Amino acid sequence: MNKKSEVIHLHHGSGGEHMTKLLNEVIFKILKNDILEVRHDGAFLNMQGNLAFSTDSYVVSPVFFKGGNIGELAVNGTVNDLSMCGAIPKYLSLALIIEEGFGLDEFIQIIKSIKEAADKANVQIVTGDTKVVERGKGDQIYINTSGIGVVHEKANIKTQNIQENDVIIINGPIASHGMAIMSEREGLEFESDILSDTTNLNYIVLDLIEKFGDKIHFLRDATRGGLASVLHEIATEINFGISLFEEDIKVENQVKSACELLGLDPLYVANEGIFVCITTPEIKDEVLTILQKVNSNASVIGFVTDEHPSKIIIESTFGGKRVVNPLVGEQLPRIC
Amino acid sequence: MNKKSEVIHLHHGSGGEHMTKLLNEVIFKILKNDILEVRHDGAFLNMQGNLAFSTDSYVVSPVFFKGGNIGELAVNGTVNDLSMCGAIPKYLSLALIIEEGFGLDEFIQIIKSIKEAADKANVQIVTGDTKVVERGKGDQIYINTSGIGVVHEKANIKTQNIQENDVIIINGPIASHGMAIMSEREGLEFESDILSDTTNLNYIVLDLIEKFGDKIHFLRDATRGGLASVLHEIATEINFGISLFEEDIKVENQVKSACELLGLDPLYVANEGIFVCITTPEIKDEVLTILQKVNSNASVIGFVTDEHPSKIIIESTFGGKRVVNPLVGEQLPRIC
Repeated sequence: MNKKSEVIHLHHGSGGEHMTKLLNEVIFKILKNDILEVRHDGAFLNMQGNLAFSTDSYVVSPVFFKGGNIGELAVNGTVNDLSMCGAIPKYLSLALIIEEGFGLDEFIQIIKSIKEAADKANVQIVTGDTKVVERGKGDQIYINTSGIGVVHEKANIKTQNIQENDVIIINGPIASHGMAIMSEREGLEFESDILSDTTNLNYIVLDLIEKFGDKIHFLRDATRGGLASVLHEIATEINFGISLFEEDIKVENQVKSACELLGLDPLYVANEGIFVCITTPEIKDEVLTILQKVNSNASVIGFVTDEHPSKIIIESTFGGKRVVNPLVGEQLPRIC
Repeated sequence: MNKKSEVIHLHHGSGGEHMTKLLNEVIFKILKNDILEVRHDGAFLNMQGNLAFSTDSYVVSPVFFKGGNIGELAVNGTVNDLSMCGAIPKYLSLALIIEEGFGLDEFIQIIKSIKEAADKANVQIVTGDTKVVERGKGDQIYINTSGIGVVHEKANIKTQNIQENDVIIINGPIASHGMAIMSEREGLEFESDILSDTTNLNYIVLDLIEKFGDKIHFLRDATRGGLASVLHEIATEINFGISLFEEDIKVENQVKSACELLGLDPLYVANEGIFVCITTPEIKDEVLTILQKVNSNASVIGFVTDEHPSKIIIESTFGGKRVVNPLVGEQLPRIC
């Protein structure tokens, strides 16, 4: 199963001998853990308390990009969704839809990245599924991960907690993931590579919740649709508006150049390691100190206001103000 | 959103305004429940004790077939996987990968089927994800469901419990789902339609576990690869062989005809509502009585033996014996 030119065939998804071989020699071998090893129709878990449960399918194209690949993304994405619920991620499922003809070497590399990302985030892949579809009915590989985490006893993350004057903090510069994917697709070259920001956010979020408990009012990772879209989701759910300061929203130089070149607004470009943290104003400096230990570009980017309910208004670097509209249409398909 | 000719576009998966509309006017509206309504990155669940966790992606083609559609299949399949763990299914996630151009009416019909199947099995869809891929990068719609259930306190389902002389019971005739799909694909017409056997097995399994506890040694649904493949999975995990009686394995007449016409062996054809139950011999008549209340074709089809370890041998209706080999190659791609 390790010859360079080998590819995945339809029979690898048949439930028969070839599938068993692929499972045994690649998937179970690399992802090995006691729970997965039981190999039943589902995993047996012993858990107590309030749980969080999340799912995401990853259809990013290309599947390998600078700073990561679809496997790493699939682990980090679901780990982060659980973290945004104030939960400690514990167990993931892994469901693969592989296009016939996908290279076995690439497949193995992706499974290895999944294992590394899972180890890094301290989660286990405990159950899974493998399907193979005909050529032209998929695109190399699509991955679904679902995850279960235990909600931290001090966590109370919900939009209803958001209050007037709450501050909006992000943990780093935006738009890197989306522009890493776009640069790859468009064959753009910059002086330094644009890297996806994909990473697991569970430890830093846990840190914040441990220290500040329910003063952390809300958390959300700014993935599809970018920072603007997640803030819009929040603004429509609460009866407040959001005011932003453009100069505090950092974008790396080469990411900014790529956005300008392609005519994209970084506010709408996907991130994979950036999250919005909405807290009471009195803890903002302490939160910032914690976030800046990991990324010096973490910043307070705005606040919650009752002046323009459900609207987002951004003050530009030169003092002008404009409304940030919801994303209409599709800026970047297949970004995650 | 309800004009007949409307289709799903890439922008329905963008994280922007069109996606919000699709979520609000179709998905959240049809699947509505209190947990889903929170609309966070994940669902909050309160659960205690031993849990089962399972995942499956459904890529069946065509997505509508006689006796069901991909939506119903996606709910029943994961409900059944949890049931086979001896668990009471509670919560499902729902992740959609839609091909650009898929009809909105068909999409709505599938979401409605998901809701009906979930209600029937008494499970809730609590979290989800929607992705749209370009034309030619998918096939109408792929659905992943992951599920969480609570393991019944009397359940103890594992291959290690299987003993010599245990009986193998199935709950009805085999090969109906696979042949329903194949007939649809091949445009075959029979006197009466071949219907998929897709159904939720949770109530009947719960019944067995309630009554017989750990005398139910093992359960597995005979999906991909059919009855032969799941028995092979079991036989390779235990140090025993399996003896089968061909005449006790029922196949409906028109299913048998379709298999003959297409040169397929019903033992390897997928089922969606048939499961293998391995029990101690002394309860076989009682188990059969319970199963036959639902389907009169439930039958004891064989037993566990130490005579031919890890091998499956079938005695034909005319008394001859042959080895049932593992499935090699791909008999029926995209069957579930």
